Amino acid sequence: MPVKLSRRSAVEPFRAMDVMSSAFALERAGRSIIHMEVGEPGAPTPRAVREAAEAALRNGRIAYTEALGQPALRARIARHYGEAYGIDLAPERIVVTTGSSGGFNLAFLALFDVGDRIGLPTPGYPAYRNILKALGLEVVEIPTTVESRWAITPQMLQEAETGGKLKGLIVASPNNPTGTMMRPEDLKALVDACEAGDIRLIMDEIYHGLVYDFPTATALQFSDDVIVVNSFSKYYCMTGWRIGWMVVPAEISRAFECLAQNLSISVNSLSQRAAIAAFDAKEELEEVKAGYAANRALLLEGLPKVGLDDLLPVDGAFYVYANVRRFTNDSMDFAQRMLNEAGVAATPGIDFDTARGEAYLRFSFAGTTADMAEAVERIGRWLK
Amino acid sequence: MPVKLSRRSAVEPFRAMDVMSSAFALERAGRSIIHMEVGEPGAPTPRAVREAAEAALRNGRIAYTEALGQPALRARIARHYGEAYGIDLAPERIVVTTGSSGGFNLAFLALFDVGDRIGLPTPGYPAYRNILKALGLEVVEIPTTVESRWAITPQMLQEAETGGKLKGLIVASPNNPTGTMMRPEDLKALVDACEAGDIRLIMDEIYHGLVYDFPTATALQFSDDVIVVNSFSKYYCMTGWRIGWMVVPAEISRAFECLAQNLSISVNSLSQRAAIAAFDAKEELEEVKAGYAANRALLLEGLPKVGLDDLLPVDGAFYVYANVRRFTNDSMDFAQRMLNEAGVAATPGIDFDTARGEAYLRFSFAGTTADMAEAVERIGRWLK
Repeated sequence: MPVKLSRRSAVEPFRAMDVMSSAFALERAGRSIIHMEVGEPGAPTPRAVREAAEAALRNGRIAYTEALGQPALRARIARHYGEAYGIDLAPERIVVTTGSSGGFNLAFLALFDVGDRIGLPTPGYPAYRNILKALGLEVVEIPTTVESRWAITPQMLQEAETGGKLKGLIVASPNNPTGTMMRPEDLKALVDACEAGDIRLIMDEIYHGLVYDFPTATALQFSDDVIVVNSFSKYYCMTGWRIGWMVVPAEISRAFECLAQNLSISVNSLSQRAAIAAFDAKEELEEVKAGYAANRALLLEGLPKVGLDDLLPVDGAFYVYANVRRFTNDSMDFAQRMLNEAGVAATPGIDFDTARGEAYLRFSFAGTTADMAEAVERIGRWLK
Repeated sequence: MPVKLSRRSAVEPFRAMDVMSSAFALERAGRSIIHMEVGEPGAPTPRAVREAAEAALRNGRIAYTEALGQPALRARIARHYGEAYGIDLAPERIVVTTGSSGGFNLAFLALFDVGDRIGLPTPGYPAYRNILKALGLEVVEIPTTVESRWAITPQMLQEAETGGKLKGLIVASPNNPTGTMMRPEDLKALVDACEAGDIRLIMDEIYHGLVYDFPTATALQFSDDVIVVNSFSKYYCMTGWRIGWMVVPAEISRAFECLAQNLSISVNSLSQRAAIAAFDAKEELEEVKAGYAANRALLLEGLPKVGLDDLLPVDGAFYVYANVRRFTNDSMDFAQRMLNEAGVAATPGIDFDTARGEAYLRFSFAGTTADMAEAVERIGRWLK
């Protein structure tokens, strides 16, 4: 019999991953490719983290842990909020997850029922939209524009509710793909609007630590009722380790535990033991960040010179979101040609914005500065 | 505002994990605990696997991989089916997952829509039931009994459909918690019945390799349309690495890829690189298995002597499922007292069978033989 798929499995591919697959295949065939398609640090995982993993390996047993994470790691993450933001958090509020992806899946299931309407600013991270749809939730896209520096405002929230009450809102700051960040006062206004409107705010803070222009606030400074999602992937250079965390209100942490027990048993224990050491690798990580800052400067100067001169402000993360409408109306085709012909992999904007993304490309500048310089040159030659 | 949870988040805890948490807490307080609560090898991960991980760590960059897994690992897993069962599988049919848990989540989303009825033999692994419920699926429990050696039969399937068409069926063999295994001819009959009845069969084969009495068949020997879920956790002693795989029909592997890209980006890459080496660790793993066989013999002889004499046949896996009705009608309370008073952690049957499980306990014998002997002694002293 033909194998039937569910209706909900009909999600869009994450094209960044498809581009990466194509890029890997070209490399296996001997081509030189500059990777700007995936939001992934080019730097290795910090030495202290790798050493902690090696010590755990020599110890031998890599076993299941508590579903919400090893107590020592949860305590260390809680302490980080004191160090980084001056907030006192109980370790019980920390939920260790399999990357931020594992956190989103868990949070959406814990908080929302089939049919609930969930707001998402666009452009934004496509996996939110696709996971939400697969879980039977209704995605309400809220377009942001240059007028609010690409941030969602309480007014936009109100307008989004004309079609029906929102149960939740998912916001990233710094944002992916734009790299724009909400100013602390704008974040506070949004948190307050969500509380007043009984909209559960899930705040994606995985690009915290990677900011270049003005200070970052965590939503936890303004409310204990938000869900904050974070990860060791970006600032801590640990993508392949698949480890992240959430901060949840204390009274619902047991519900998250029951779901996590069933959905994942526990998070990779080698990654958990390694991640504790990440907080002590500040010196190495700040050097990596200095590299991003150099890359950012290089691209903000170099890309306009070769014809990509319509860029969003790059407040944080490691992305340049470029308007390429003067070259194409089909960003997927453009990205594929740039990969095949110029050897530069980038992600088509349609991943992030189904309405306007065909005119945009996202470039990740998390690689080496030499690669960024080479990319600008290759793009320049190719666009001529 | 009070934080509202979704209705679907109201899943049962996985009590094995709760018992494990309590056991860890008692150990941190200085108590000696024999762990028989979690289905987890006591042996360390094979040396070759840990060495492969160390080599990857020294290499430095632990990065995202292709969403369905690194091509080399997918090819190696496909080859394993040739070696173990004499079946020729295309690597494209292999989906690398974050443990079997990640596989189930992915398969349920890919194949079933909200409201679909899914059959589950009981006693069975509770996470199936709980994940299914969280994803909006209707669980149809199908009680098995000693008459069919605790296996589900085509007749039972038919009876389960009197309440409405089944869209899917999830079966484990060897089974958890019972340790019973379907005979190859019974498995074939079930596969055929599912095909004839247009019921998608998801076969959990994570205890393959751990069998003691008669040969194992994979459902893939009888059909290319089944979904097979497997894992490196059990036979390969890699629980904490959170890595498993599925075999899916070729024509739906792209749909799994799109979902996986969004749900998890990729599987832990250190675990992927390490797992390839697991297939070459046969010698070490067969020694571990010989230990299980010794433990099994010890428990099958020792438990009846101390009063636990009503046991299911232990064909495979590393579980003894014991009827404890003469001692209790509340297996959770019994398990908690046995942990606190005797220092032996086991899992209450209600995890696996909400209707009859209050009279059962599951003992995992994946620890050391010395621990098993000590456990029998402790239980004996305590039951007196």
